[in-house]
Amino acid sequence: MAVNEPPIIVLVRPQLGENIGKAARAMLNFGLTEMRIVNPRDGWPNPDAGPSAAGADIVLEKAQVFDTTAEAVADCAHVYATTVRKRGVTKPVVGPDEAGQAIVSEQGRSAILFGREASGLETEDVALARSILTVPINPEFGSLNLAQAVILTAYEWSKAAREAHGADAKLAQPTAEDDLLPPAPQEELDGLVAHLEQMLEPKGYFFPEARADATRRTLRGVLTKPGWNHLEVRTLRGVLSTLERRDRRPED
Amino acid sequence: MAVNEPPIIVLVRPQLGENIGKAARAMLNFGLTEMRIVNPRDGWPNPDAGPSAAGADIVLEKAQVFDTTAEAVADCAHVYATTVRKRGVTKPVVGPDEAGQAIVSEQGRSAILFGREASGLETEDVALARSILTVPINPEFGSLNLAQAVILTAYEWSKAAREAHGADAKLAQPTAEDDLLPPAPQEELDGLVAHLEQMLEPKGYFFPEARADATRRTLRGVLTKPGWNHLEVRTLRGVLSTLERRDRRPED
Repeated sequence: MAVNEPPIIVLVRPQLGENIGKAARAMLNFGLTEMRIVNPRDGWPNPDAGPSAAGADIVLEKAQVFDTTAEAVADCAHVYATTVRKRGVTKPVVGPDEAGQAIVSEQGRSAILFGREASGLETEDVALARSILTVPINPEFGSLNLAQAVILTAYEWSKAAREAHGADAKLAQPTAEDDLLPPAPQEELDGLVAHLEQMLEPKGYFFPEARADATRRTLRGVLTKPGWNHLEVRTLRGVLSTLERRDRRPED
Repeated sequence: MAVNEPPIIVLVRPQLGENIGKAARAMLNFGLTEMRIVNPRDGWPNPDAGPSAAGADIVLEKAQVFDTTAEAVADCAHVYATTVRKRGVTKPVVGPDEAGQAIVSEQGRSAILFGREASGLETEDVALARSILTVPINPEFGSLNLAQAVILTAYEWSKAAREAHGADAKLAQPTAEDDLLPPAPQEELDGLVAHLEQMLEPKGYFFPEARADATRRTLRGVLTKPGWNHLEVRTLRGVLSTLERRDRRPED
């Protein structure tokens, strides 16, 4: 599947430069670089934005400013309006995950609108959008700030893009399979079990005789469950060998 | 599928009260209320936490403080260490989505560890965990603050919990997992590790001293991996107690 261009993040009438910087940081954390700002209260550039961007200066430097939301999304095929409130609008409502997947798969540029910190998007901004993006937040405590709304959206886009890229995707994290050694061959595990049993035998662990088989099965079950790899089995053999020693001080 | 209890968010040695408040807000946004704090730099309660919690006071009021990470997770069966760095640890690495799904479906309480703002988790904190939680961040700009890491994790848990609740209606049949015992609480595992270390110590296993910490971590890693349940841990405690005995014949 071809992966579409990343979405444009549109901040509509933001108030504090600090929040614009934090939004830039949240964007770049998940690979988004294109920010548009509609009619920022304190003008642009804003000296408060840089410090809170924490190094995401490229986003701020490239940011474009528009007078109206309509102009900011004029070249976009898909516009999402982020809002937590129901507005009686009859538009499809999607979560960040559905929006991310749609943006990755649909042709044409996408924009995601975020409203001003205190009051959110105006009705006329929402009217520009074809879809409502709502973060499914705790209904008894909905208190998502601008950067948090941006980061959840960017995160879901990034996840959808990685999935679409499939095996070619450059993952920041190693998968568990890459990191982990396979379980040791059965004969190594058998060696560990035999070693432990041979230590336990003279202590009476398998007594009474009638219970011995069940006890051995239980012990083997516990030691089989982990799927220890070669190195781990070797560590445990070392533990057992150590326990067989007489007590000694390192100076011995 | 039964939906398990929500995860406990554990902040390990956090520095700023403001960040603790922001983490509380991020938690409550997605329905998480149980915070534990390990050795906060500026003590607890911290007057800077309340204002930045933006109304999530219930989380701060209920927060519990512990001296060590081990104590904070003593009653937890599943411990996740959030870290972006590779540490040469051979533990499974999961994303927030996989962690959320696992926490919802696994029996036993889960805890997610978050490290101090500047430096993250210490190696010994990571050693307590069975899984590494890594947010798949832009490899060229990884700058996730504490509250952002918390909110992404809480968001994914909330999503998985909603999906599981939805599946409840359709899936009435209990799964095989319902029959399995969850991993033993961390304190039982700690008891096992301590017992074995105390047996190995007089044999010189932790000599030379310079290697002792690394050796302890390796041993703990091997014993943490299995996720042994209560009965399995009890079996192994019995094994150790038996090995401590003098040799004897059943007739003794």
